[in-house]
Amino acid sequence: MTGLEFLRAIAAGELPGAPIAELLGFEPAEAEEGRVVFAATPDARHYNPIGTVHGGLAATLLDSAMGCAVHSTLPAGVGYATLELKVNFTRPITTDTGRILCEGKLVHRGGRVATAEGRVFAEATGKLLAHGTTTCLILSPNGHGA
Amino acid sequence: MTGLEFLRAIAAGELPGAPIAELLGFEPAEAEEGRVVFAATPDARHYNPIGTVHGGLAATLLDSAMGCAVHSTLPAGVGYATLELKVNFTRPITTDTGRILCEGKLVHRGGRVATAEGRVFAEATGKLLAHGTTTCLILSPNGHGA
Amino acid sequence: MTGLEFLRAIAAGELPGAPIAELLGFEPAEAEEGRVVFAATPDARHYNPIGTVHGGLAATLLDSAMGCAVHSTLPAGVGYATLELKVNFTRPITTDTGRILCEGKLVHRGGRVATAEGRVFAEATGKLLAHGTTTCLILSPNGHGA
Amino acid sequence: MTGLEFLRAIAAGELPGAPIAELLGFEPAEAEEGRVVFAATPDARHYNPIGTVHGGLAATLLDSAMGCAVHSTLPAGVGYATLELKVNFTRPITTDTGRILCEGKLVHRGGRVATAEGRVFAEATGKLLAHGTTTCLILSPNGHGA
Repeated sequence: MTGLEFLRAIAAGELPGAPIAELLGFEPAEAEEGRVVFAATPDARHYNPIGTVHGGLAATLLDSAMGCAVHSTLPAGVGYATLELKVNFTRPITTDTGRILCEGKLVHRGGRVATAEGRVFAEATGKLLAHGTTTCLILSPNGHGA
Repeated sequence: MTGLEFLRAIAAGELPGAPIAELLGFEPAEAEEGRVVFAATPDARHYNPIGTVHGGLAATLLDSAMGCAVHSTLPAGVGYATLELKVNFTRPITTDTGRILCEGKLVHRGGRVATAEGRVFAEATGKLLAHGTTTCLILSPNGHGA
Repeated sequence: MTGLEFLRAIAAGELPGAPIAELLGFEPAEAEEGRVVFAATPDARHYNPIGTVHGGLAATLLDSAMGCAVHSTLPAGVGYATLELKVNFTRPITTDTGRILCEGKLVHRGGRVATAEGRVFAEATGKLLAHGTTTCLILSPNGHGA
Repeated sequence: MTGLEFLRAIAAGELPGAPIAELLGFEPAEAEEGRVVFAATPDARHYNPIGTVHGGLAATLLDSAMGCAVHSTLPAGVGYATLELKVNFTRPITTDTGRILCEGKLVHRGGRVATAEGRVFAEATGKLLAHGTTTCLILSPNGHGA
């Protein structure tokens, strides 16, 4: 199964999704080659003690969407590991924000390394809530870069 | 209440903790001025679909510990907002890892901006699992930098 | 003079450019509101000891182009300070690469903080050589966010 | 020649240093396994048009010191490529700052990837001017991770 087939099987409910997606309440919304979207509706469970949604929600969504954007470009039998994640928080997220979407897009796909970027925005207003980048190592079955 | 008093009141159970900490299963372990530690025990709920704990757990712990390390230096009435978060994932986390600790430490404290760094490591072995940095904006009650 | 007027005066040679631009050999190529392009032609002086152009050149170009993209949105009398810079190096740069362009674009413009992203690519082939993001603090004349 | 032998040969003047170090005016100051220090004295050539030393100088020093800290751990015949660089600018640098030192230290050394952190500080006062992290890919002679 290619990376994209794998992601589509999860989105279609044919394969189990990520346990953490169930825990945090997010779900795949779109998946094509080099672009993946997740969705969530922030609620009181996601709050930090200072009155807004914890940055960990946007960070987790970005990690998922950007990592899956890389995964969606991989042939069958090739995996990846996320080396690093960078997130900018541009607006506070609250329960008033409503449903949020996180789009991850491939930026560079080399033989051993790929990078992606992502944006989290409010579905209702389109306002940018967070954005980020990631660097992934591509893992071929024989243990080195594909 | 100063930032450190606030954090210690949460750790002591005198103030409610972060809802997201309850959701994800992490808790404050130590808090002093400029240094805060959180702890968690990764389990099956934290997994991604590719067989390891999702990077969002370490990212959330680092965001918490580093943000609180900044918060612990703030006088009463002064808040902060996290502008950005950077995480490096250095080793996979699995249910075999056992309890993990995330230590955040202040690096720089200016009048309007502070930075912090953090490390996530396995309590049993001391192995480094992730590390990161953050940049926070300091918010005084009159709406600008303290 | 607004930020954009300032940048255009430099590009037109009516104001002196950055000394570091002269030292490293780069120059402004385009400037509009929220988007600035710099250009350079890497040569032997930019090399590191391991046989490629040092990452500092792309980092400096990205810092310039992204910071100026923020600057280009500021009214007269308002300045900025770059808080942090993140760069991904996607392909090696050599003297064979030829002229390179670095485009910085505004991503988010708040009252106190702005973010931007940038890309470095080879003019001849369009190949992506590096990309990055930045976070800037906006400095109004009275010492707090504009 | 191991990475450390290579760095020490440059520091001793037995091998030519980086052309960019000559261009920008920085030089190796210390090198041991997992830790490398560079030094520079900022002057008018390093300025940006807004009255301080351009962030590119600190970024270039950090890229050098952190990359070399990784390099210093590599056996003969194994190289590296810097995947990404993150820099926080904590205080402005001017010609009044005097000589600055940039220390890079290894954080994590895996088989295929290594990370390092670095700090730039004023030699006279010890004040922190910038800090950063980096991620490097380790390149063995047969084309995959060492």
